Amino acid sequence: MLRIAILGATGYTALELIKILLRHPDVEITTLTSRQEGRPHIASVHPQLAGRIDLHLENLGPFEIASRAECVFCCLPHTAAASVVPHYLDAGMRVIDFSADYRLDDADVFNEWYEVKHPDPERMASVVYGLPELFAEQIVDAPLVANPGCYPTSAILALAPLLKAGLIGSQDIIVDSKSGISGAGRTPKLITHYPECNESVAAYNIGRHRHTPEIDLILGKSSGAETNVVFTPHLIPMDRGILTTTYSQPVGNVSEEELLGALRDFYAEAPFVRVVDHLPGTKDSQGTNFCDVTVRLVRGRVVTISSLDNLIKGASGAAVQNMNLMFGFAETTAL
Amino acid sequence: MLRIAILGATGYTALELIKILLRHPDVEITTLTSRQEGRPHIASVHPQLAGRIDLHLENLGPFEIASRAECVFCCLPHTAAASVVPHYLDAGMRVIDFSADYRLDDADVFNEWYEVKHPDPERMASVVYGLPELFAEQIVDAPLVANPGCYPTSAILALAPLLKAGLIGSQDIIVDSKSGISGAGRTPKLITHYPECNESVAAYNIGRHRHTPEIDLILGKSSGAETNVVFTPHLIPMDRGILTTTYSQPVGNVSEEELLGALRDFYAEAPFVRVVDHLPGTKDSQGTNFCDVTVRLVRGRVVTISSLDNLIKGASGAAVQNMNLMFGFAETTAL
Amino acid sequence: MLRIAILGATGYTALELIKILLRHPDVEITTLTSRQEGRPHIASVHPQLAGRIDLHLENLGPFEIASRAECVFCCLPHTAAASVVPHYLDAGMRVIDFSADYRLDDADVFNEWYEVKHPDPERMASVVYGLPELFAEQIVDAPLVANPGCYPTSAILALAPLLKAGLIGSQDIIVDSKSGISGAGRTPKLITHYPECNESVAAYNIGRHRHTPEIDLILGKSSGAETNVVFTPHLIPMDRGILTTTYSQPVGNVSEEELLGALRDFYAEAPFVRVVDHLPGTKDSQGTNFCDVTVRLVRGRVVTISSLDNLIKGASGAAVQNMNLMFGFAETTAL
Amino acid sequence: MLRIAILGATGYTALELIKILLRHPDVEITTLTSRQEGRPHIASVHPQLAGRIDLHLENLGPFEIASRAECVFCCLPHTAAASVVPHYLDAGMRVIDFSADYRLDDADVFNEWYEVKHPDPERMASVVYGLPELFAEQIVDAPLVANPGCYPTSAILALAPLLKAGLIGSQDIIVDSKSGISGAGRTPKLITHYPECNESVAAYNIGRHRHTPEIDLILGKSSGAETNVVFTPHLIPMDRGILTTTYSQPVGNVSEEELLGALRDFYAEAPFVRVVDHLPGTKDSQGTNFCDVTVRLVRGRVVTISSLDNLIKGASGAAVQNMNLMFGFAETTAL
Repeated sequence: MLRIAILGATGYTALELIKILLRHPDVEITTLTSRQEGRPHIASVHPQLAGRIDLHLENLGPFEIASRAECVFCCLPHTAAASVVPHYLDAGMRVIDFSADYRLDDADVFNEWYEVKHPDPERMASVVYGLPELFAEQIVDAPLVANPGCYPTSAILALAPLLKAGLIGSQDIIVDSKSGISGAGRTPKLITHYPECNESVAAYNIGRHRHTPEIDLILGKSSGAETNVVFTPHLIPMDRGILTTTYSQPVGNVSEEELLGALRDFYAEAPFVRVVDHLPGTKDSQGTNFCDVTVRLVRGRVVTISSLDNLIKGASGAAVQNMNLMFGFAETTAL
Repeated sequence: MLRIAILGATGYTALELIKILLRHPDVEITTLTSRQEGRPHIASVHPQLAGRIDLHLENLGPFEIASRAECVFCCLPHTAAASVVPHYLDAGMRVIDFSADYRLDDADVFNEWYEVKHPDPERMASVVYGLPELFAEQIVDAPLVANPGCYPTSAILALAPLLKAGLIGSQDIIVDSKSGISGAGRTPKLITHYPECNESVAAYNIGRHRHTPEIDLILGKSSGAETNVVFTPHLIPMDRGILTTTYSQPVGNVSEEELLGALRDFYAEAPFVRVVDHLPGTKDSQGTNFCDVTVRLVRGRVVTISSLDNLIKGASGAAVQNMNLMFGFAETTAL
Repeated sequence: MLRIAILGATGYTALELIKILLRHPDVEITTLTSRQEGRPHIASVHPQLAGRIDLHLENLGPFEIASRAECVFCCLPHTAAASVVPHYLDAGMRVIDFSADYRLDDADVFNEWYEVKHPDPERMASVVYGLPELFAEQIVDAPLVANPGCYPTSAILALAPLLKAGLIGSQDIIVDSKSGISGAGRTPKLITHYPECNESVAAYNIGRHRHTPEIDLILGKSSGAETNVVFTPHLIPMDRGILTTTYSQPVGNVSEEELLGALRDFYAEAPFVRVVDHLPGTKDSQGTNFCDVTVRLVRGRVVTISSLDNLIKGASGAAVQNMNLMFGFAETTAL
Repeated sequence: MLRIAILGATGYTALELIKILLRHPDVEITTLTSRQEGRPHIASVHPQLAGRIDLHLENLGPFEIASRAECVFCCLPHTAAASVVPHYLDAGMRVIDFSADYRLDDADVFNEWYEVKHPDPERMASVVYGLPELFAEQIVDAPLVANPGCYPTSAILALAPLLKAGLIGSQDIIVDSKSGISGAGRTPKLITHYPECNESVAAYNIGRHRHTPEIDLILGKSSGAETNVVFTPHLIPMDRGILTTTYSQPVGNVSEEELLGALRDFYAEAPFVRVVDHLPGTKDSQGTNFCDVTVRLVRGRVVTISSLDNLIKGASGAAVQNMNLMFGFAETTAL
């Protein structure tokens, strides 16, 4: 039995993570942490978990947890994560980090986009990006894996195979994403207050969303291409799901069939990417670890559509997929 | 031109109130107050109002406002309202108060249900309850009108005519209400955070919702019956609308036709109550000042259904209806 | 491996059933039927199933299916079910029927409420009602199980223990239910057209909903009490979930603690009923086979709240729970 | 009093149109047509209209209507409209047509995109496109106005001023639109069945949506530029609203301030276009005739955001705005 600790267990990604891990035959959750006082039962924070897991939230650190867990899922916010992750690694645990702290490889870029100083800059360049469809080999042995952002996962899974195959140009890529509200986290704000965001669609953070350099970096790492994507996220009145529409220039006389074929070839062995002929809706992958991808050629432009559940394939499902690879379980277990 | 001030203009009821008053040919909004610093433009708080009204939020009191307005709409929370309303009255303005402060006539009952001491207890018994369908005559001359609660309006409009006609018993009345999320106000909380309340229905405050004594009091005032309603409110994943289902005992061998007839007779002259044969949905009255009502006789029980927009007939529309009566405009103007 | 056939696989209950059964280690779906022409792949009807199951819809009958399945889930509409179920039983298969055909025990009652003649009246009285919390012993050996209605499950699980314990009166019970739209099935109609039912709540079929006699019958069977419930269903703008609020008369001086205690005792061994202290929302049980139940004593009335996912505990989850009992698997497998 | 007939009054655009016209002091609706049998009251088709208008649906033609109306709003589907509109014009009425029949000026283009033969091809080139912000002068005297499509209005209002000012290139324009479900009309289909489209986002008709040539044509007419837009519409789980995000190439070293300034200049006198600094949400213009527009310069790309209510500024509000211009009323009356 692999023993598991989850740091920062009060949010949505931790909730989904717990639900997935409860289905996993080879792991046991031993520890849930939070700074909340009074050791509340996890079911009082997440009523969905009533009767399913009997653990209290504890305010513990790496020393106490070292004797209880081999694998740590860190669901802390950025900079909070990189302030503690090194201690867990030093204590011999392997860590899957949900924050953005180890997704970029350059502290200057991080500092610029996140407007805060990175607490552990030296480590950044050596951390594996936990997108198994691109980096499965490195994930297997990694002590620390940076779990990808939800938007980048949807954009990269659509674009990387076409870039790598040389079928689209690396310049002039547009990424227009639509996300459910759970992507904004569990802290109440006016923008996520029901009567504000229900029955409304709006773009936000145009030109300065922090997932922009992450998309560029990973597209470059996986394909060698240097991109400069224009990324526009939109909030959609639904709980979960991301649909990403990208627009790029085809190279030469590539046909729609060749584009679809390139996607099919690339994902021939990938258990969680479904290359489909139809236009997928986010409901098709809701509650699953699938990412659905398709492509169209429209008036001389390549248009991709990719769709996933931001809390599963965009967060907790991907994390369990990484864990399965890291600890030698079948990649699809519990997913 | 009747000059109007709105106290506490940052919430949803004030927003709807402004939108209605902008359509009114005989009034002018001169003053919007808020404790927010920096005199923000109202459109920066309510983007819907961009280009429609050019006023800033000001932190003013009764002295400054006295020279600017004859009619004051008070959208302050309970106890905050009753702390300032007397000063506006003393300065000669007429006031329509959205809070619960003047809906009850007994400070002890208020103190018990609201768990706070009433700031202006002597005045309570003399204030008119602003439900024009029941108290139009008193409203006309009232210096101060207590604008009704949204749930009470829906329950009372269905039950009062049947009680008054002696067609249902006063004991053993159940009021099961379903409300959209805007009824919870504009302050972000976990319970109104989109991913918490979307795709979910829940009851809340069973047995202790503060509208309970208000319903009992007004049913008693209007019909002479002494009720003791069991009131259960539920939150529904929609912006606005209240549907109230009540269950009561018929008196004697009353038929469904007689029940419907009693409603039709009672509201024959009421411009905003539609007695309908079909089962109304809240969308039928969305954005309007209508309350739709119908009644069924089921297995020896009387079941009423009433439906309204909680922000219009349940709040700001009713307030304008009251203003129209108080200042001699046609009751339906702007509504 | 238990081999399974699903009759009428194009609707929502079949979709949920397939998703649950795909997680079940001891069963194999061999056959999906539909009258659709051209043997479409199930994933073309339910895109959620892409890459998860490789079966086509076939127009088959009991003869062909007999060699392929030991267990048949019948997702056909009422009367269509009872027209074919006897043939499956005769061919030696065991059947779990989702329709209303075998839930009542009296053809006259069926004919009256469903306004159609029952095709297999003799069998009705002997069929087991598949609510494991009440009838687990009979389910184990039953050749045919009538899977309960979604509304009745929510009402009965709340009321039966209190009736059986003699804590509430059998007369004068009110059942006010709120259901997500998937309960209306997958056939497009105006009432379920998005812009009609979104942002709206309405009651429907007051006094004549067909689940009324089912609730009365099963409450009687399980408690000996003769009830005459007033049942009012409402449509709520959400995909799934039922919240049922009941109102009944307490017997004697029963306290809230005794009522809660009676529920806890009754469900002490039930894996899928969670008796909770808080007021549950439907999201707490969304996607699970749980039913959450609680009770309050308000002004001399007993108020119960019960909540479940209409497609899982209200349909397909309950069906798999029944299958588990019928075929000797652990009751909670795959749930 | 201008007398008005509405052809095809059972859909959403007719409903909104009636609600707006009921507020208009200078017009009277005399006639509502439909092919429905039995002359149903309009309130039985649209319960929102109960108590507000007392007309029945009639199956009438131009001869009968000529004596009852000077202005005809045609809400019939494409080709049905152009089959009858000529008769209304011949009988001396002025017509505002909601269909696509007279928006294009070339029957061949129509036949190709709509896959059906146009019934009145000769008239097409001479009909005025009813977007008052661009063609107010021609609208004033037009016997027939083609009311614009909802998507084209949102795209054109954002792009036309920038194209005309030469600030963006005409090639390589991407239009990514997000629409509420009411845009799909009132006929129930699987794609608009609540449990299918709720909690989901999907693109549809990529590369072949019929609004594509309309956008190109009107951008060309208004700016002289020849465009070839890539247009991708998406369905969003909300009742109403369109948000359109466009991507284009800036010309030279244009700054964000210059782009915003060009929009402000262009719409300085337009009562219904609000050029805003913030990123608008569709809720800001819900229920109004406003279109909110803004622009950003991101990594060398021009990104515009425009937002409107598809049933008001995208349909019925624009139609009344056209009527006001055609019949000499103030442009903003009732809007």
